[in-house]
Amino acid sequence: MAIGEFDLINRYFDRPSHQCAITRLGIGDDCALLSVPEGQHLAVTTDTMVENIHFFPDADPFCLGHKILAVNLSDLAAMGAKPVAVSLALTLPKPDPDWLEAFAQGFWQLADRYQIDLIGGDTTAGPLSITVQAMGLINEKMALRRSNAKPGDAIYITGTIGDACLALKMIEGNYQGESDAVLSRLHQPLPRVAEGLSLLGIASACVDISDGLTSDLGHILKKSGVGATLTWDALAFSSSVRNYVRITGDWKMPLIGGEDYELCFTVPLSKQSILNGLMEQMDCTKIGVIDQVPGLRIIKDNQVTSFEMQGYQHFL
Amino acid sequence: MAIGEFDLINRYFDRPSHQCAITRLGIGDDCALLSVPEGQHLAVTTDTMVENIHFFPDADPFCLGHKILAVNLSDLAAMGAKPVAVSLALTLPKPDPDWLEAFAQGFWQLADRYQIDLIGGDTTAGPLSITVQAMGLINEKMALRRSNAKPGDAIYITGTIGDACLALKMIEGNYQGESDAVLSRLHQPLPRVAEGLSLLGIASACVDISDGLTSDLGHILKKSGVGATLTWDALAFSSSVRNYVRITGDWKMPLIGGEDYELCFTVPLSKQSILNGLMEQMDCTKIGVIDQVPGLRIIKDNQVTSFEMQGYQHFL
Repeated sequence: MAIGEFDLINRYFDRPSHQCAITRLGIGDDCALLSVPEGQHLAVTTDTMVENIHFFPDADPFCLGHKILAVNLSDLAAMGAKPVAVSLALTLPKPDPDWLEAFAQGFWQLADRYQIDLIGGDTTAGPLSITVQAMGLINEKMALRRSNAKPGDAIYITGTIGDACLALKMIEGNYQGESDAVLSRLHQPLPRVAEGLSLLGIASACVDISDGLTSDLGHILKKSGVGATLTWDALAFSSSVRNYVRITGDWKMPLIGGEDYELCFTVPLSKQSILNGLMEQMDCTKIGVIDQVPGLRIIKDNQVTSFEMQGYQHFL
Repeated sequence: MAIGEFDLINRYFDRPSHQCAITRLGIGDDCALLSVPEGQHLAVTTDTMVENIHFFPDADPFCLGHKILAVNLSDLAAMGAKPVAVSLALTLPKPDPDWLEAFAQGFWQLADRYQIDLIGGDTTAGPLSITVQAMGLINEKMALRRSNAKPGDAIYITGTIGDACLALKMIEGNYQGESDAVLSRLHQPLPRVAEGLSLLGIASACVDISDGLTSDLGHILKKSGVGATLTWDALAFSSSVRNYVRITGDWKMPLIGGEDYELCFTVPLSKQSILNGLMEQMDCTKIGVIDQVPGLRIIKDNQVTSFEMQGYQHFL
């Protein structure tokens, strides 16, 4: 069956804008047009997922549609931005309607949750690859940058870490275990959009954990010109990750494993009481403290160990 | 040599913002931040180029860097938007510094011409593929949409058409001829940014010619609910394309051939005198007229022929 580029886009992706949207013109012209309210900045981020690199060839298209949007929304969340619009560049070996329908369902289920407009994109033939650019709104004075952490600030993470990396180990046959909850952390991560918005005016710096806690916290440390000390016993793990560490002894996995899409953020002493009031609904855990001394250290078994700030690297 | 994702980005693509930019935060955080001035809309467009589909495996990386930006700027031009910022998603089989340096040079030569900021992106491993999202500013009441052409409006194109398609025929060995000017139309198209800006307040509708004149004009006709009649003798061709048509008899090529990245636009009678004053600097030609009767017709050799509004289609 021959499907033209335009038919493809129209069938699965052309929908009316959400009512509260900033979209003034959506899909169907040379450009989309966005109206950014006064006093707001537009936060912009881009992520690509490539077959055989970021996902397996038999990956569920519903999960891919969810995940490519989720990883972009996670970047918006790390800035404290409210997602409003995305564009989608989809490169496909062939226009398989079943694949496209499932992909679109996964994409829209998450997009509709946040009333996000798809404002444009490009569909091309070629090896399977998906790029999304996500755009969000943020008060022009409030964005959660990486560069503002100060010595004495407490370090927090949302949720638990290590689950996505554990899921990968299970799929690759390197660890025995079967848990839908762990697998869904890899395949259908939930971006911490609400948490990012709650942190406005509270967090001094924020990053999302895509490449691994130590790598991503490392961005905050470098940009802010500070160091950090983490406390192993304070880290938040799921029971699956806790079991993995106990059985294998591989305690570094949850620190360097990527793709958890939690937030890591710092909070000054003066804001800690406000955060405490939010702790229950925020699902977050204090894991360490920002130091004046550069570098990343972790306290484990009463010993302080230096830790390289390195996570997943492409092209290695 | 092992180069991490972040080093790659920094080495070739991290530059200070241009002075007049709307960029409040560029590369190096979870998101970039843009400030859109009051009364302006942000025009957003995305285009992808994939190896073996949009370019040959041995394609000159300098030209690729130029072209992926050019095709996106062409969409902004068709809206009458002033380009301000782009993001770049680059998927590469391996991090070849020579390739990257040449690609970056081609990219920046064009970006600097328009003082465009690169505000972010993603570099990933995988089959060679390049996606750019370009963003521009346009007065909120002035955008050149496709939907506003009216019967009686004159139809114009900038420059000449058919050259890029002729270049492809030469490269594929389907036509004898060698002309750097023709080849550069394919490899290094020049987006009509200045012309798009000049057309604000004059053109009733506008589109860029990426898929072919008849296909792209077809978008205006469908969106505006009108038809058109073109005059063959009025069409603007280079001498190379004129020779090709004379020798081969293939007169449809320049009408359906894609990738010229000229603008096609319509002008109401009331604005024709203003356009006439701009004609010399605009390099444009009147090629036909908008009709009430749907469909596209062309007058050639005193005969009126109906023409399908179809150009390059992926997945055929």
